[in-house]
Amino acid sequence: MAEVNDTPAPAADAEAYTLDELREIYTEKGVEALDAGRLEATSPYTVGSFLSRLDVDGRREVLRLIPLEHTTSILSEMDAEDAADVVEAMREPRAVQILEELDPDDSADIFNEMEAADRERLLGKVDDETAATMRELISYGPDTAGGIMTTEIATARPSMTVIQTVRHIQRLNDELEHIFYVYVVDEENRLLGVVSMRDLVMHGPLDYLRDFMTRDLKGVCRVDMDQEQVARLMAELNLNAVPVVDADNRLVGMVTHDDVLDIVQSEATEDIQKLMGAGGDEAVNDPVFQSIRRRTPWLLINLVTAMIAGSVVYAFEDQISKMAILAACMPVVAGLSGNTGAQTLAILIRSIALGDIHSGEDRRVCIREMFKGLMNGLLIGLTAAVTVGALTGNPMISVVIFTAMVMAMCFAGMAGAFIPLMLNKLGFDPAQSSNIFLTASTDIFSFAVFLGLGSWILL
Amino acid sequence: MAEVNDTPAPAADAEAYTLDELREIYTEKGVEALDAGRLEATSPYTVGSFLSRLDVDGRREVLRLIPLEHTTSILSEMDAEDAADVVEAMREPRAVQILEELDPDDSADIFNEMEAADRERLLGKVDDETAATMRELISYGPDTAGGIMTTEIATARPSMTVIQTVRHIQRLNDELEHIFYVYVVDEENRLLGVVSMRDLVMHGPLDYLRDFMTRDLKGVCRVDMDQEQVARLMAELNLNAVPVVDADNRLVGMVTHDDVLDIVQSEATEDIQKLMGAGGDEAVNDPVFQSIRRRTPWLLINLVTAMIAGSVVYAFEDQISKMAILAACMPVVAGLSGNTGAQTLAILIRSIALGDIHSGEDRRVCIREMFKGLMNGLLIGLTAAVTVGALTGNPMISVVIFTAMVMAMCFAGMAGAFIPLMLNKLGFDPAQSSNIFLTASTDIFSFAVFLGLGSWILL
Repeated sequence: MAEVNDTPAPAADAEAYTLDELREIYTEKGVEALDAGRLEATSPYTVGSFLSRLDVDGRREVLRLIPLEHTTSILSEMDAEDAADVVEAMREPRAVQILEELDPDDSADIFNEMEAADRERLLGKVDDETAATMRELISYGPDTAGGIMTTEIATARPSMTVIQTVRHIQRLNDELEHIFYVYVVDEENRLLGVVSMRDLVMHGPLDYLRDFMTRDLKGVCRVDMDQEQVARLMAELNLNAVPVVDADNRLVGMVTHDDVLDIVQSEATEDIQKLMGAGGDEAVNDPVFQSIRRRTPWLLINLVTAMIAGSVVYAFEDQISKMAILAACMPVVAGLSGNTGAQTLAILIRSIALGDIHSGEDRRVCIREMFKGLMNGLLIGLTAAVTVGALTGNPMISVVIFTAMVMAMCFAGMAGAFIPLMLNKLGFDPAQSSNIFLTASTDIFSFAVFLGLGSWILL
Repeated sequence: MAEVNDTPAPAADAEAYTLDELREIYTEKGVEALDAGRLEATSPYTVGSFLSRLDVDGRREVLRLIPLEHTTSILSEMDAEDAADVVEAMREPRAVQILEELDPDDSADIFNEMEAADRERLLGKVDDETAATMRELISYGPDTAGGIMTTEIATARPSMTVIQTVRHIQRLNDELEHIFYVYVVDEENRLLGVVSMRDLVMHGPLDYLRDFMTRDLKGVCRVDMDQEQVARLMAELNLNAVPVVDADNRLVGMVTHDDVLDIVQSEATEDIQKLMGAGGDEAVNDPVFQSIRRRTPWLLINLVTAMIAGSVVYAFEDQISKMAILAACMPVVAGLSGNTGAQTLAILIRSIALGDIHSGEDRRVCIREMFKGLMNGLLIGLTAAVTVGALTGNPMISVVIFTAMVMAMCFAGMAGAFIPLMLNKLGFDPAQSSNIFLTASTDIFSFAVFLGLGSWILL
């Protein structure tokens, strides 16, 4: 939810607030102490971050101080969910005005997050053109090219000259905030080629677009292309913007580089959160009970896996009663193999996300990671065995620890690669709670091997 | 290491190879079976990914099939370390030619990764202008604005008209692959303002730049600004490119949006790998022993923490001998509190990285996370207590399990927030091996509480 400025934003005369200042003044002195001029000089991103922390009433109070134009910039910087809350809380005429002013892709994101009743009510109030565009954009999934594209694009015909095109886009200027490219289309709006602003500057005023436009476009997206694929395509080809076409190759919109940056950031956040068994789109300031609810299911799954691991230990109850040192060594074997697997997991999750692992490489990757676990197992296992042997004076315990750690860390390296690769192959997100599945498997394996070996050798 | 195309890349006539095809043909039939025409039609990114997997000899063989111009595009898509290996292995005249052809920022990255002797030798061979630019760029840290900027920028004077400026940049066209903006400077190269390509298209041919250039530039970087700060600035202001100036406000270069995308991707990878105690910049195809060496130190630290946890258990040796069920329940309490902390950790790492937590909020965040741990502890602890009670028929064990889990998960929520916040405050990377420190603290706490309560209540 952010828009492109074609030139850096000019600074206003009043001094901008920092986020900390805004929060301090608001908390200590209330909304009356905020200066409208300074608020206007503050970047929309900062005001947006500030508003995200306030409740609905607070947001309304603050936004009353801000002129319409600045409000739209702020809303486009906010999370769509928060922005929808703000718009739903506004008086209807103002909400309508803002929804019409916003860039269509931002506006559609906000409509997407509204209660169904509010959405229908407001769609009935905005002008017909906006309503039609909104209904179209909402119909695409929010995570597709169609869901993130803007529909404000400049088009021209191949038979137009440079000077005609320039006059044409000068007329469009008020509507189009950000023009990188002019897309060249036929009478049915099918995409034929593209000319950049730079092409227009570099060619003579009477040159025809058809004579210098780029015809073979590699970076064209279908409306239903997944946003991650769009991001990868734009990153690989280093493009500022890609055109979006429907099934008949008709031009329907454009995805710009700032949308891609947002996607890349949020995908990375999602990966790291899912990996650790959290929600995937949780933010640090989400309502407490919402975030508890999101985390609970994974902890319940974890409870089941932990109980299986516990029951492995319970199977060796008699042996542990006879030799409680076994219980004291369990955390060492399980902890080290868990973290060995976690190292591999971290490498794999990102490699899969960035497309660095190719078909048919799965087996090779698993074997390599198993080998790395084995090598570190030999080294760490030896260190642990010597230390434990010295502390307990029992060399046979050292043998058990060493053997169990080598086997467990070797297994952990393999599991750290196998689990995300398998989840990916089965069509799941490879990051989804991988860490919970990993520690479950390394705990169970290391308890079984260590206690099994211990019972056999020591008793 | 990637460059901006101002227009989408045109497709050549020959059919492009996919990465899998390249690898298959090369592995099965050798380099002779690769078709030069099809290689040229393949995107530089794909060829770069393919070359990264080959050894130095393989890279040299394949690059012999590729014309100079395409080679530079491929090198600019490769990791600088790999690209430096390739260039160092080339015949000197070709290496010199390529280093002169490459964009200065890419070329400087490659020089940065060379052996010192090779660097000095090649700097002596390239033309004087390239050598001077290289020495300047190398002098900036690789992670600063100066290290990632390109020096190929278009400048103009405020007294120039649109038509003069257009003629001027038309002459520069061959040198400058990507022009978004023309920077307006005084006679000492101090930055006065900027005009975009779009400004040039939108204004009359006889308008003076000084009359419409944007003077108040918010997005200006100093050469020594950290690359993460540059990325955040560009993301917040939604800019395509930012000018880079030295201490005297003299324009020295420009950072473009594709550089920022690379930074954001690699920062996310680093976070996730460091979090799990891996190297931070390990790739799935790194040499096996290099990646083992990077992971070993963290596993040794983990061995120390695991032994401390083990010695806590050992302190309860007598109690465990009398009641081995305690050992069986340990993994449940420790596992659940470890994963509760991991959920919090995942949220915090990204919130800190994205700048969502502000000064003075640390205490509030820790308390909120502790509360979330407490709530889930009550729920999960109750479930575990009922299950274990039913399985063992011993209600007092249920009491111990419930109490220990509530306390341990409450502690884990707090620790999952406290550890990264404290690392950050102390000036360390908050992600650095947080997971190892976290599981150490949750293991030790949960063993002590559970076994302590168990001894007290059950024996």
